[in-house]
Amino acid sequence: MLMFRNDYSYGAHPKVLEALCKTNLEGNTGYGDDAYTERAKSLIRELCACPEAMVEFLIGGTQTNVTACAFLLKPWEAVISPVTGHLNGHEVGAFEATGHKILPVEVGSDGKLFPEMLPPLLEHHKDPHLTKPALVYISNATENGTVYTKAELTALYNFCRANDLLLFVDGARLGAALTSSENDLTLSEFAHLTDAFYLGGTKNGALFGEALVITRPELTRDFFRMKKRMGAVMEKGWLQGAQFLALLEDGLYFDMARHANQLAARLQEGIKALGLPLMAESSTNQIFPIVENGLRPKLEQVCAFEDWCPHDGTHTVIRFVTCFHTTQEDVDNLLSELKKLL
Amino acid sequence: MLMFRNDYSYGAHPKVLEALCKTNLEGNTGYGDDAYTERAKSLIRELCACPEAMVEFLIGGTQTNVTACAFLLKPWEAVISPVTGHLNGHEVGAFEATGHKILPVEVGSDGKLFPEMLPPLLEHHKDPHLTKPALVYISNATENGTVYTKAELTALYNFCRANDLLLFVDGARLGAALTSSENDLTLSEFAHLTDAFYLGGTKNGALFGEALVITRPELTRDFFRMKKRMGAVMEKGWLQGAQFLALLEDGLYFDMARHANQLAARLQEGIKALGLPLMAESSTNQIFPIVENGLRPKLEQVCAFEDWCPHDGTHTVIRFVTCFHTTQEDVDNLLSELKKLL
Amino acid sequence: MLMFRNDYSYGAHPKVLEALCKTNLEGNTGYGDDAYTERAKSLIRELCACPEAMVEFLIGGTQTNVTACAFLLKPWEAVISPVTGHLNGHEVGAFEATGHKILPVEVGSDGKLFPEMLPPLLEHHKDPHLTKPALVYISNATENGTVYTKAELTALYNFCRANDLLLFVDGARLGAALTSSENDLTLSEFAHLTDAFYLGGTKNGALFGEALVITRPELTRDFFRMKKRMGAVMEKGWLQGAQFLALLEDGLYFDMARHANQLAARLQEGIKALGLPLMAESSTNQIFPIVENGLRPKLEQVCAFEDWCPHDGTHTVIRFVTCFHTTQEDVDNLLSELKKLL
Amino acid sequence: MLMFRNDYSYGAHPKVLEALCKTNLEGNTGYGDDAYTERAKSLIRELCACPEAMVEFLIGGTQTNVTACAFLLKPWEAVISPVTGHLNGHEVGAFEATGHKILPVEVGSDGKLFPEMLPPLLEHHKDPHLTKPALVYISNATENGTVYTKAELTALYNFCRANDLLLFVDGARLGAALTSSENDLTLSEFAHLTDAFYLGGTKNGALFGEALVITRPELTRDFFRMKKRMGAVMEKGWLQGAQFLALLEDGLYFDMARHANQLAARLQEGIKALGLPLMAESSTNQIFPIVENGLRPKLEQVCAFEDWCPHDGTHTVIRFVTCFHTTQEDVDNLLSELKKLL
Repeated sequence: MLMFRNDYSYGAHPKVLEALCKTNLEGNTGYGDDAYTERAKSLIRELCACPEAMVEFLIGGTQTNVTACAFLLKPWEAVISPVTGHLNGHEVGAFEATGHKILPVEVGSDGKLFPEMLPPLLEHHKDPHLTKPALVYISNATENGTVYTKAELTALYNFCRANDLLLFVDGARLGAALTSSENDLTLSEFAHLTDAFYLGGTKNGALFGEALVITRPELTRDFFRMKKRMGAVMEKGWLQGAQFLALLEDGLYFDMARHANQLAARLQEGIKALGLPLMAESSTNQIFPIVENGLRPKLEQVCAFEDWCPHDGTHTVIRFVTCFHTTQEDVDNLLSELKKLL
Repeated sequence: MLMFRNDYSYGAHPKVLEALCKTNLEGNTGYGDDAYTERAKSLIRELCACPEAMVEFLIGGTQTNVTACAFLLKPWEAVISPVTGHLNGHEVGAFEATGHKILPVEVGSDGKLFPEMLPPLLEHHKDPHLTKPALVYISNATENGTVYTKAELTALYNFCRANDLLLFVDGARLGAALTSSENDLTLSEFAHLTDAFYLGGTKNGALFGEALVITRPELTRDFFRMKKRMGAVMEKGWLQGAQFLALLEDGLYFDMARHANQLAARLQEGIKALGLPLMAESSTNQIFPIVENGLRPKLEQVCAFEDWCPHDGTHTVIRFVTCFHTTQEDVDNLLSELKKLL
Repeated sequence: MLMFRNDYSYGAHPKVLEALCKTNLEGNTGYGDDAYTERAKSLIRELCACPEAMVEFLIGGTQTNVTACAFLLKPWEAVISPVTGHLNGHEVGAFEATGHKILPVEVGSDGKLFPEMLPPLLEHHKDPHLTKPALVYISNATENGTVYTKAELTALYNFCRANDLLLFVDGARLGAALTSSENDLTLSEFAHLTDAFYLGGTKNGALFGEALVITRPELTRDFFRMKKRMGAVMEKGWLQGAQFLALLEDGLYFDMARHANQLAARLQEGIKALGLPLMAESSTNQIFPIVENGLRPKLEQVCAFEDWCPHDGTHTVIRFVTCFHTTQEDVDNLLSELKKLL
Repeated sequence: MLMFRNDYSYGAHPKVLEALCKTNLEGNTGYGDDAYTERAKSLIRELCACPEAMVEFLIGGTQTNVTACAFLLKPWEAVISPVTGHLNGHEVGAFEATGHKILPVEVGSDGKLFPEMLPPLLEHHKDPHLTKPALVYISNATENGTVYTKAELTALYNFCRANDLLLFVDGARLGAALTSSENDLTLSEFAHLTDAFYLGGTKNGALFGEALVITRPELTRDFFRMKKRMGAVMEKGWLQGAQFLALLEDGLYFDMARHANQLAARLQEGIKALGLPLMAESSTNQIFPIVENGLRPKLEQVCAFEDWCPHDGTHTVIRFVTCFHTTQEDVDNLLSELKKLL
């Protein structure tokens, strides 16, 4: 069976697992109060060139999005999100569970939010009988596999600063974004164009773990209490620190992401060569071909993938995802299976 | 440095870690929809002799307590907890964050809740201007290291059933409880005297993970959505399944707990022989001597431990905790260090 | 100044105020535990032909919507609402503040929700990683001044029952709906086509107060505690009972609504005769003409009204509302002022 | 039947009702955006000598406590309250429903909180694994009928400022407190010794309504949105403004409170003369005699009152409350009935 269902079907990259195993019986202080965590935090601050930033490790994506956004808002404040944003659509109301409204914005097939989409919403919400938009949530890479360019992120961030909005970036696939062929941002440039973001571990070679970065120190007070209140503090916190050290100290994190992107590009090229249309052109590790509904049961015999959304009465958008463990052979096998089925 | 600070200073028991590593590059479906998780759930149902029970894995203790209790309650319902209960005192209001009140009950130095403590509270809360008590939260072992006997738990459970109260047991240290010298309950007997409980992994040889059991199937509908809403679903869910399989299929879980209890007993005996008083006699893996305040800085030079609470102006209750990795030598070294310091 | 801003610019109908004043120094038990409240509840049950229904008085519309919907849902369940629904757009996230997500559905310019709009949403949300739709929220009259016919409401209610959804109707303007020229429902027929609704007092001749009806007794347990928890229990609860008695015992409630509708119809006819287009044809007490932006500042000199929404770059939808206190003279004066301005 | 059950058994003082009726058909802008509300706010700022304070009207006591305290806190912050505080005991978890924990403090039979009760709690909660105490909630008059002196309130406020705690005073019976024979505070002195408080209308001659004052302008941003989010904005907001104007512009508010206090004092003296013990000596409008259980059913034949709490196996604390409408004759009749029954 070919595995293209998602980027969390395997455990950790062997180097990450090894680093984690090495800590196993050392004896470490709990709750992230250990040397691994301290070094991993320092390294992230350094890579971001944000010496004053707060770095905290959380466990999964939904938990990180929800904890961070709720931390940054007052009760009557709302999040602006692309209607397709993960926070809006795929988290069982986990964010609303913290008492906040999401204001969804219609976006194009690239899933990106642009500043020009926001003024009417902001104008409308000046009315104090409505919730107050206070934070913009986007993902990079987006749910649709696209990435924000430096110019786009700069424009959005400037707009946010000018309009008293915070900018939070869901970085579940930040590795994929920053190593994409369309990307022109360094991690440090990226970090300076956000108020907060996270560097996703789970979908790029960690067993679990997300590194939340709040770049502006004046926004960080008491975060640990919020994290604890959300049930998000790991007893054996060094597991997160040790993994992120292994991911980041030799560039493994970006190497893995680049590898997954390159194989995804090969897959996308092959799919186009087979004449299959795409929902959107992707430059990261998620590929979205549109297939006839009849193809799917046959494809399921040889490959794990996901239905993404209906396209029309007879076609469906499906999703293939590559990861650190995908090989060129896997891609080529998938393409030859597709060829047989078409 | 001797490590007696707590039972989560080490990673996983080597057999657990090995099991987990074996799954690393297999490729598994996410979110707990994998064969390890399925087998671990079946095994727990079997060990509990509750073939209809729901078993779900969560990540840590606070998350499990909060998710389960909030799931079982309606918004206007409250939890009754010993004032010393972990849910009440040590979770930054994580439970109140779900919108529920905790009604704390004063208990003795054994930390145990008895049915006779509840009628005045229930009588008072018949008034519909007050919150409605609907669930009793206890821990076994308690925060004070004591355990409930079969007679005690039976009496409490019968009282709860008769008074339309659910009984939830925090089992962060359930292994320690069920292997305690004072225990007369099997896991299955225990399970049948609760409506819900969890079997704690983090504090007994897992890297992380708690197995929540809701014994009455009529109470379990839609739990997965609640878990997702609380940010508690792990992407790589098989990590939890594989660990619990390793913990439970050969009795390792109870062997480790018994080991920790026996060393704690040896430590407690030694402490008494040194003439140090105890806050409470413990039959599990947490020991609570009362020491002069002046002793603590010296002890910190050789041993990691925790201050538990002030005893009087000149004395403090401290806590030593043993775990699967503690050795008899560790205990004897601690006792000889204590002897030198006294 | 002509008053067409809304239907809560005046206090109570004189008969309602008189009834309320009569109770002033009688001495009554608080919290709704008085004879007026009891009689008003009975009368409403009788008018609805729902002898088992629960009736409870609340203070305002947002409070009633939020308390009722949150009461009827489990934490992971969501409300389906027209995107234009008051609960979704105009309540500062008051409903999300209770921890629930709203799933907005695009509707036509009549603001009505039809069963055929729901299957894709329901299909999509079978996925347990998404919130569970459990209640449909509509308004009658709608925010756009339209009403549901018996056939429409029957179809929607049947759909809801067949799909395990509750149907809640926001009746802030239920009087207007049930006396509309388009209406073919009696109050009792209406009540039997809902699971819960409220009979709005504030916008139809009461000083304040809404009568929440939950028609199915199996859904009502412990509602008073929920109401108290939401800060919605009035100390001097008889004020609500006395007002609703006065509103309902001689049909005043429906007389006032009919009066307002008739004057609104006269206004709408006049507006059409002046050649002004309408956002939607209304059969209740809210009228929505589309005017050139330049007209508004001039109109504000003589008449209180509200901007409803932008229509295009040069035109705006404005709203005129009639109420029990509006006179034919007011309407004719407004029409002649409009004629002068056009 | 003699009415001593509470101070909300009657409607409004006739002058208040008259003022309210006068506004009935004037036509006013909704939501508190009217001239009465504006003047009432100004008058309160003036009486408090707090020209920069925010004044907002809410509807009832629980709503005001909950909205104000939740507004002033961050999600991980907690309220310190006397264990007997209304917020803690009598509001069905309405405050916890906003996601915050209450830290109850044991107090004496006077129900008062003193600074020396707080250091151990503050010390304990320095631990970031615990909730952060951030606001002290007290009532004046207390639930037990006692009042804070200037020295006591000054000490408490200074302690709060020195320890980064806000001080909020529940003023449901602030009129009674400030006209008590034990009181030595003016309203303005009182206001300057709090961060926020409310001037209760419901229990002192209004139909309903509480005036929340946040004395420090830097704490007030966006309060209206919070109020709306809590369902606490009245459509016909001028009803609150008009009532508070009538209450305050000629001192009626304090005259009524003084009247009630004087009659309560007469009642308390009479009760003592009859040899009945008191739970606590009260200087306000609530009196707490301790009576044999057998007396209560007989007393209920002639007088409405409340059981307050059990005193011992054979005695109960009961509560008599006076109000603006209580007469000397009522008091003397109650005393003679009591005499007959003893």
